[in-house]
Amino acid sequence: MIVRVAPGTVLSDALAKAGVRIALPCGGQGRCGRCRVLVREGQVRRRSVVRLTPEEVAQGYALACQTLVESDVTLYVPPQEEVLERAEDTATRAAPEVVTCDHAGLPWVMKYHLRITPPSLDDNTTDWERVQRELARQHDVRGVRIELPLLKRLAGVLRASERDGAWDVTAVVEHGTWQDPDGAPRLIDLVPGDVTGRTLGLAVDIGTTTNVVYLSDLSGRQMLGRASAYNGQIACGEDIISRIIYCRREGGLQHLQELVVNTINGLIDELLAEQKARPEDVYLMTVAGNPTMIHLFLGLDPAAIRLEPYIPTVNNPPPVRGRDLGLHIHPEATVDCLPGVGAYVGADITAGVLRAGLHESDAVTLFIDVGTNGEIVLGNRDWLISCACSAGPAFEGAGVESGMRAAPGAIEEVWIDPQTAEPTWRTIGDRPPRGICGSGIISLLGEMLITGIIDKGGRINQTLNTPRVRMGHGGPEYVLVWADQAAPGVGDVVITEVDIQNLMRAKAAIYAGMSILASSVGLSLDMIERVLIGGAFGQYIDVEKAIDIGLLPDMPWDRFQYLGNTSVQGAYLCLQCRDHRARIAEVAAMMTYLELSADNAFMNEFTSALFLPHTDMAAFPSVQEKLGL
Amino acid sequence: MIVRVAPGTVLSDALAKAGVRIALPCGGQGRCGRCRVLVREGQVRRRSVVRLTPEEVAQGYALACQTLVESDVTLYVPPQEEVLERAEDTATRAAPEVVTCDHAGLPWVMKYHLRITPPSLDDNTTDWERVQRELARQHDVRGVRIELPLLKRLAGVLRASERDGAWDVTAVVEHGTWQDPDGAPRLIDLVPGDVTGRTLGLAVDIGTTTNVVYLSDLSGRQMLGRASAYNGQIACGEDIISRIIYCRREGGLQHLQELVVNTINGLIDELLAEQKARPEDVYLMTVAGNPTMIHLFLGLDPAAIRLEPYIPTVNNPPPVRGRDLGLHIHPEATVDCLPGVGAYVGADITAGVLRAGLHESDAVTLFIDVGTNGEIVLGNRDWLISCACSAGPAFEGAGVESGMRAAPGAIEEVWIDPQTAEPTWRTIGDRPPRGICGSGIISLLGEMLITGIIDKGGRINQTLNTPRVRMGHGGPEYVLVWADQAAPGVGDVVITEVDIQNLMRAKAAIYAGMSILASSVGLSLDMIERVLIGGAFGQYIDVEKAIDIGLLPDMPWDRFQYLGNTSVQGAYLCLQCRDHRARIAEVAAMMTYLELSADNAFMNEFTSALFLPHTDMAAFPSVQEKLGL
Repeated sequence: MIVRVAPGTVLSDALAKAGVRIALPCGGQGRCGRCRVLVREGQVRRRSVVRLTPEEVAQGYALACQTLVESDVTLYVPPQEEVLERAEDTATRAAPEVVTCDHAGLPWVMKYHLRITPPSLDDNTTDWERVQRELARQHDVRGVRIELPLLKRLAGVLRASERDGAWDVTAVVEHGTWQDPDGAPRLIDLVPGDVTGRTLGLAVDIGTTTNVVYLSDLSGRQMLGRASAYNGQIACGEDIISRIIYCRREGGLQHLQELVVNTINGLIDELLAEQKARPEDVYLMTVAGNPTMIHLFLGLDPAAIRLEPYIPTVNNPPPVRGRDLGLHIHPEATVDCLPGVGAYVGADITAGVLRAGLHESDAVTLFIDVGTNGEIVLGNRDWLISCACSAGPAFEGAGVESGMRAAPGAIEEVWIDPQTAEPTWRTIGDRPPRGICGSGIISLLGEMLITGIIDKGGRINQTLNTPRVRMGHGGPEYVLVWADQAAPGVGDVVITEVDIQNLMRAKAAIYAGMSILASSVGLSLDMIERVLIGGAFGQYIDVEKAIDIGLLPDMPWDRFQYLGNTSVQGAYLCLQCRDHRARIAEVAAMMTYLELSADNAFMNEFTSALFLPHTDMAAFPSVQEKLGL
Repeated sequence: MIVRVAPGTVLSDALAKAGVRIALPCGGQGRCGRCRVLVREGQVRRRSVVRLTPEEVAQGYALACQTLVESDVTLYVPPQEEVLERAEDTATRAAPEVVTCDHAGLPWVMKYHLRITPPSLDDNTTDWERVQRELARQHDVRGVRIELPLLKRLAGVLRASERDGAWDVTAVVEHGTWQDPDGAPRLIDLVPGDVTGRTLGLAVDIGTTTNVVYLSDLSGRQMLGRASAYNGQIACGEDIISRIIYCRREGGLQHLQELVVNTINGLIDELLAEQKARPEDVYLMTVAGNPTMIHLFLGLDPAAIRLEPYIPTVNNPPPVRGRDLGLHIHPEATVDCLPGVGAYVGADITAGVLRAGLHESDAVTLFIDVGTNGEIVLGNRDWLISCACSAGPAFEGAGVESGMRAAPGAIEEVWIDPQTAEPTWRTIGDRPPRGICGSGIISLLGEMLITGIIDKGGRINQTLNTPRVRMGHGGPEYVLVWADQAAPGVGDVVITEVDIQNLMRAKAAIYAGMSILASSVGLSLDMIERVLIGGAFGQYIDVEKAIDIGLLPDMPWDRFQYLGNTSVQGAYLCLQCRDHRARIAEVAAMMTYLELSADNAFMNEFTSALFLPHTDMAAFPSVQEKLGL
């Protein structure tokens, strides 16, 4: 493939122009060293050679995001990491429980079957005023509004719908949005025949790493299906900051928006195919996600979120339409992005609080959502305080050598024999292992610590007499599954010392956040009465192991409850029920946001927590006992 | 130019494919015979040869709308009528008076200057919530809404607006629309600096033949300019029915929409250039027009308007946006198409009634709007009844050999010496004559009748001893202006017997409509206390001459008042004032619509009126006296 570019063009831009998209996990900042390409011929200028050895540079390797074209150049692009390929595995996983709403109010969207006498010289009311009249007469739905795209189709749909001498149609009516819950009803569509059977809606969680979609029937308030996949934006940056930086590129924001919309559309298509339904059958979507993800989804520039004083464009986005975003839903369907609180505490957290019920709790409750960031909320019905700590995607299975999402074949629990260092495991769906998901990783780390395969600093004990501890490409590693026991093509399933260091930073950030939040309101961690945990770990989280590694504070296990993906569950409640949608707005309005990035105390707490389980062993008496200290 | 088409393609479609647009004044029905082209080589099949002589067919002439390609064909397209060229003359003409509104309510759109302290770690409210907060604090404007396109630009606009340490912007806020006059305010735009000087809006009348645009300042309630032009759709059909038929062609509706939008955009560009303003400065547009014109403007298929039982898609179109229609105004500006009553009584008439004040009148008042159709309303504050009669565009100067719009150079009044048959005339702007506008045509016909140049049947007296009566290409004609006295390039300005027959049909339809309307409520015409006249005749209408030819009933002249283009004036009132907008909705709701097309009494009245002034001379005593009968 040949493409013409101006001298001084960055290689990654030149490749993009040629239609070759390469992964830029750090967003093109020249930090991760993973966009390396081989310059076979021609002159280039390397602005940075980070993570390239002198030998590699001598061979011709260069970082695509940091190298400029200076003459005609021939490039070889190595095979790219298969993030997107893994994302295609979208098998659904049940959350531990299906949330249900016991409110009985009017659904957001309703269908009404109409039989309408066609006009005559004696009754020459126009088409639209006739539909309005019949909605009032036959269903007591009054003052319905219409918009131009449907108005253009109205005359044709009505005249094509005639059956037994009457126009026979189903009116799809939206009864308000969060901005105007009691506002005038809106005719979203008019469909020939009686199609009142079910009314589809979608709840979506846009995680930095994982996207989840629930399909449901709004009229029956019934769950129809679930699907999840890795966010296609991962190829342009694994964390929020990298993605924001990626937006500074020409067309970067638009590209990221397309990627996440494509990911969500793929999940929608899959769920609709199962139900033999079409995109035009989906009339409402609620969306939760962190503020950056919501900004990218809506096409809002997130630049100011990254820079002090960290300002989103909006916390309460207005309702938009399916067609505004290119979603595979009805073009006139409302897309309701739920409200956030601040630059790093978004709708994923307000939805989580709604789902967890903190705002209705008498007891002081801690809510933790461990996604790519770790967000934490402390409070009860009277007050709520929140913070965010950059944890990275390790607990979602991303950025870990053998990590994967919580999908069939993911190892979700591990036991290790302290004598032989031989492991056993359980996978989701009892399939042959394909990788390790978040809950499996916590379980594995805890076992490795207790059995002495790793020490408190997270270093692998290379003196153990087992072939499972070995030197890999990137340093020491432990082989959890030999290739012949794993799913075909997977190879050995391992955890590396580098993985473990990443995981320790993630758990330290979360634990430090909890500590700071509690101390900011004058509480100590042991004064917290309940701990509710959300996140994409898998079907459950092993509290004992999470305490062992110092991710959770050392308290009686019955104070903990794992709720699964609380973000999508909260979005689902808002989809099903206008009362919940009103409450999430109250939650967002009452929540205080503590900005940690400028907080020295947080850095101190973080450093203290960079140990398994913690520098302050006195805070972890149960682990101290197990380790025989 | 060469183009490939399938055998059986209609020549006009083949020409369109080649980019050659030819005028189809009858909409491609094969009725007018004016789309003739010369087939120089190849085989065609003529479905119809209406209005072609056998000699012309022998020479190779064919109707483009009625002739099918059967082999390779070479066509010659004669020069097309210069309808569009004439339409480029967009010089403005004053209405007899500028309507003003004495209500004092809040304008629909307001500008507010804001100085906003930028965010800090201590005040990290988001951009949008900050703008909302400051609009409330500084201007007491609360609960403002925003939509996605502006939200996308918000962060950039605010940060680029900094001046003397604060964000310095002007917020453009819409305070409701007709659907929600007290609804939440909407931020249409946010503009750097203080641009609160004036707030532009447009009132538009979309006539079948003539389009008129008023530019005004919403905040100062001040008229800034007026412009008019022929509707570009004329090339696709001169009357409503021809245009509806044109819509059945592939892409026909879209083409007609583009043509009228182009015409209006041309007028907007002209008015904005005069004011050194940009399209983005226009924040509201109100639109009046007959139902078919409104349907075509919005892209709604008007097919059902033409067919019994004559049903528009909508009488009360929802508010749409500038971007929905491709208008040269702010893309987020509301476009408010005013309410109509029935298939042939539209917003042009409700706007006219509003302007004329029928709905506030104690006296029984007749309102006539003579455009391409003649619409008539009778009533007072308690009741209103209306009808429409197909008059054709003759009184707008179209379809008349030397006719033109009321623009500089149009003859607007005529006197003829009864001895010599020599005329004198007055033109708009005292320019050399270029043609005759509606008021001039009425004046001319009246003089010709009284001086005996035409008889009561509208036939020209060819025995008169004057070179001004002669045989033209299409039959007898009277030369009003010799070429050497006319504007350069115009040639002789004439009126033909064919023109006169057209004009007689038009006036007969209007008079018959008035008669039927009066008798339908048990009144005779002489019981009407006031007659208010709207329409695009020119600056005034000579009531005496209009009575002479039987266009208006024979009553004391002081009962008549000519109001000019009442449609655009009514639209202007609704643009300036929410009270007027509420009243026009009441007018539309209270008006009864009488469908004449199925009415035998109308046909009888029409036939009786096909005489100058009328078959029943007793109804025109003043004319009887003049004619010495």
